[in-house]
Amino acid sequence: MTTHGPGGARAVARCDALGLAPYSDAADGLYRAYLTPAHRAALDRTGAWMVEAGMTVRLDPAANLIGRYEGTAEAPALLIGSHIDSVRDAGRYDGPLGLMLGIECVAALAEQGRRMPFPIEVIAFGDEEGSRFPAAMLTSRAVAGTLPLAALAIADAEGVDLGDALRMFDASHESLCGGSGIASQWPLGIGNYLAAARAPGSTLAYLEAHIEQGPVLEAAGLAVGTVTGIAAQRRYAVVVTGTAGHAGTISMPLRRDALAAAAEMVLAAERIARAAASDLVATVGRLEALPGAANVIPGRVAFTLDVRAGDAPRRDAAAAAILAEIHAIAARRGVVATADRVHDLPPSPCDPGLMDLLDAATQAAGQPVRRLVSGAGHDAMAMASLCPTAMLFVRCAGGVSHNPAEAVDPADADIALAVMRGFIDRLGETLA
Amino acid sequence: MTTHGPGGARAVARCDALGLAPYSDAADGLYRAYLTPAHRAALDRTGAWMVEAGMTVRLDPAANLIGRYEGTAEAPALLIGSHIDSVRDAGRYDGPLGLMLGIECVAALAEQGRRMPFPIEVIAFGDEEGSRFPAAMLTSRAVAGTLPLAALAIADAEGVDLGDALRMFDASHESLCGGSGIASQWPLGIGNYLAAARAPGSTLAYLEAHIEQGPVLEAAGLAVGTVTGIAAQRRYAVVVTGTAGHAGTISMPLRRDALAAAAEMVLAAERIARAAASDLVATVGRLEALPGAANVIPGRVAFTLDVRAGDAPRRDAAAAAILAEIHAIAARRGVVATADRVHDLPPSPCDPGLMDLLDAATQAAGQPVRRLVSGAGHDAMAMASLCPTAMLFVRCAGGVSHNPAEAVDPADADIALAVMRGFIDRLGETLA
Repeated sequence: MTTHGPGGARAVARCDALGLAPYSDAADGLYRAYLTPAHRAALDRTGAWMVEAGMTVRLDPAANLIGRYEGTAEAPALLIGSHIDSVRDAGRYDGPLGLMLGIECVAALAEQGRRMPFPIEVIAFGDEEGSRFPAAMLTSRAVAGTLPLAALAIADAEGVDLGDALRMFDASHESLCGGSGIASQWPLGIGNYLAAARAPGSTLAYLEAHIEQGPVLEAAGLAVGTVTGIAAQRRYAVVVTGTAGHAGTISMPLRRDALAAAAEMVLAAERIARAAASDLVATVGRLEALPGAANVIPGRVAFTLDVRAGDAPRRDAAAAAILAEIHAIAARRGVVATADRVHDLPPSPCDPGLMDLLDAATQAAGQPVRRLVSGAGHDAMAMASLCPTAMLFVRCAGGVSHNPAEAVDPADADIALAVMRGFIDRLGETLA
Repeated sequence: MTTHGPGGARAVARCDALGLAPYSDAADGLYRAYLTPAHRAALDRTGAWMVEAGMTVRLDPAANLIGRYEGTAEAPALLIGSHIDSVRDAGRYDGPLGLMLGIECVAALAEQGRRMPFPIEVIAFGDEEGSRFPAAMLTSRAVAGTLPLAALAIADAEGVDLGDALRMFDASHESLCGGSGIASQWPLGIGNYLAAARAPGSTLAYLEAHIEQGPVLEAAGLAVGTVTGIAAQRRYAVVVTGTAGHAGTISMPLRRDALAAAAEMVLAAERIARAAASDLVATVGRLEALPGAANVIPGRVAFTLDVRAGDAPRRDAAAAAILAEIHAIAARRGVVATADRVHDLPPSPCDPGLMDLLDAATQAAGQPVRRLVSGAGHDAMAMASLCPTAMLFVRCAGGVSHNPAEAVDPADADIALAVMRGFIDRLGETLA
């Protein structure tokens, strides 16, 4: 079993420390959006922790904070990171935990005076959640070099565009972090943004620890799990058109009730996903019945259908089965159903060799090995375009996330840290 | 077969004439709300038609327009009527048709120089739909004497209270209907409103013709039907509480999806109502799923459940069966369901003797007799507290109502007029 100190508990405590003003843009609760004063303050604090851990710090052109710990040689760097932004009314661990655990990995090496045969960079991505601008994973896509220039023509709900937000963020540097020692490589702005891209081959691997945001590990009694990949996700907008009518005067056999038809469709999606008895999930998250009066039979229902699985073929087969069922239900009930595909993300598999290293490190930490798919998207998905990726899930209480009730046991964070350190050691051995 | 002239076609044409400005408060489409300029204009025009048909006209303290055709003796009056107000984006016949047919009944008598042994009064109720103030059937309840004083403390969406609306309506009298000859008994106002109540015993009977607003007559190939009563109606507000969660990370067996549970409940209500194979209907007209995001499993769903039947025991048995099923579904799925009864109207049966007269008149008009329940509420429901009531349903195209597409065949209106005239004749005979 790898020995470890209080690093896990410290990582959790640092996430907690960032849970309040000035690290939140909201007066009560946590909301830390990309390029806001709270983002700036959180980077300054995190940068100081990075320096304390033995790293040099810099800001890249997408406002990602990077701490660097040199290796024994000039070589492609191992990148360890996660995001520092949050949703509204967020929990404290979704994002920051992976970042703080990365800092602990370096702190432990520095304490032992050890250097790996590769540099380690810890990165705080600025935008994963997409809670300010109408785009998600802006900053990891910028680093991976997959962000098109057109994607930068965006503004937030107040009309502040990305360029202005970058300039304002830059201007706040002086006042907020005079002594933090964080240097931008360039002045921030739209013109430089895509220079955040790393050259292909410049990065050895990307490792991200993240809370599971689901109940699988907790249900299995496990602290950590090796992520096999990020699920293939497909989303449909379904519209069911029946005939609205008076709830008192249209007898049951004469109805073409769009809501009753949609109810059957919701249950069909659930039934088909359940029958797969796998990582396949299907969700109707949004449903609107019109005209929406207690005394009127609904004539029109619109709903979303979200289908995900670890691989695209199983996802697509399930989606096709659900759509076939939707059309059969519509035909049987004399209503019309249309389904438009509005979203189609391929699966993002993690690197098999890196998964083996995580498994080995998990066993070495005295923990049972468990592999699981991530149903949620993560920066690792964007980074997979640049380099091999690995993800370690950490158990969270009740599977709750995007919620102030989000909770992580410091003992679990300690186990995660041990696994990450074991992963780094083994990665060094494979290169030796 | 009773002979009849072009009265039915004229009644339909008069409804059409009231379908546009100044008889509508909306620039396009029909919307005529209580105590608005459109209401005033429609009363002035209708009053002129009443005078032309041989009646004297007056406005009662609830702004109901009443035309009176004297009988051969002082006696309790037969009241024939319906409402002149409409919903938003209304059809032209829901309400006005019964009123115009009442005027035609009197016109036919006057043309023949005939008087019945009782006076006939034709009444245009001002508020049945409740589309302006948060109350329905205000004016028929005022006439029936069942309106509590507290019910008058209401205001419309613009904050105009009933008293102000009455005063403004009164003030518009001079400018709009200088020559119509319509006289108010009292100045309109809250203080006089309840004086619209008729003394018990002062009214012989109430007859209302109305479009069916349902497809039963059309499906049976019939122009008219005798209404047996207005359905007993019960409404519930149901709330289902499950657990919200990430649509990608919570595996199917671990979900407590409030929308999937609600979908089962919607189908249970439909199944139980269908199984009754009667006039029983159950409707979920309004359903809201929260938080309502495509990537979040719904944690809370609120929906309405409306159950109606011709009599209360069958309605209540069906409602109890549906509620039991709702609770069983909730228990099986590990979610919580609550159901609050928000509305409970007893059935309002029509008078059996008057139903027989309508049936006899229908047969005499060469039409098959059909009896049916009204699933919708009507002024007759309020009037049943004052006197025996009778209702005649007229076929409408596709069962469509509350919609500009509402349509009535003038030939059907002619048949309805013949039946109403036969009813009046037979009512006279029973009193002879």
